[in-house]
Amino acid sequence: MMGLYLEEIEAGFTADLGSYHFTREAILAFARKYDPQPFHLDDEAAAAGPFGRLSASGWHTASAWMKCYVATNQAAWDKMRAAGREPAPLGPSPGFNNLRWLKPVCPGDTIHYRSTVTGKRELNSRPHWGLVFALNEGYDQNGVLTFSFEGKALTPKRPQ
Amino acid sequence: MMGLYLEEIEAGFTADLGSYHFTREAILAFARKYDPQPFHLDDEAAAAGPFGRLSASGWHTASAWMKCYVATNQAAWDKMRAAGREPAPLGPSPGFNNLRWLKPVCPGDTIHYRSTVTGKRELNSRPHWGLVFALNEGYDQNGVLTFSFEGKALTPKRPQ
Repeated sequence: MMGLYLEEIEAGFTADLGSYHFTREAILAFARKYDPQPFHLDDEAAAAGPFGRLSASGWHTASAWMKCYVATNQAAWDKMRAAGREPAPLGPSPGFNNLRWLKPVCPGDTIHYRSTVTGKRELNSRPHWGLVFALNEGYDQNGVLTFSFEGKALTPKRPQ
Repeated sequence: MMGLYLEEIEAGFTADLGSYHFTREAILAFARKYDPQPFHLDDEAAAAGPFGRLSASGWHTASAWMKCYVATNQAAWDKMRAAGREPAPLGPSPGFNNLRWLKPVCPGDTIHYRSTVTGKRELNSRPHWGLVFALNEGYDQNGVLTFSFEGKALTPKRPQ
């Protein structure tokens, strides 16, 4: 992550991933395509629904985390390249644990994401890669924790 | 789920959620918006990337599960209403565990999703709702398990 090799990443490292503003248009566009439940699509139905107002699909909140994560990595790579260093690539993720949708995300909300490394380990199956564990969180504009999951990503070791 | 109340759902109940065909266009559209990594956007970059070819964002595979889940619920509701019964609504999900991206999903792949109830419990905090646990899986056109997660969803109890 952030252009760093496995050897350079330690538990406690935190990356500010910036924020994503949930417009009504983006909420409706995502919901129409992937989660057309009435409380993600229609104000009147949402008023009678579980949160009393229109809210974003939870998968939209998760996908917006990814958008912010990729953009922050790309900015870190640009900075490294400008300083004459080739960044380590982002590896794929085998999956993750414990995703929590703690609060509905509504039109006009801005979620600020961050990622904190919680650990890493080597992989017997892949000598050139390790696995980095991170707690990913999203906070709303009032600083309230709204979304979190415990991510895992393959991360390259420094070439010998 | 599927219009059923908590009392009517038992471990072992399986729902076939139908399938989602991953076109190149849908893969690129999702990746441009939410996961613009080169191996989700560009054939040449993907050839040099972790899977050797263009693949869908993992969040796209997850969002397509949701699309199939909602459509299958809506079909079940229509059938119940045609039979003169008002279906139980889908409740929100507080989150889930152990999401696994086991195989890349590539243009032309069709993922068939299914959901199997693994358990349920009452909630002290919400007397009218329970929590239903389900193993959600996606299989490719060759029957290979490609995607899974352990879902949780609030489910209404039968009105007294």
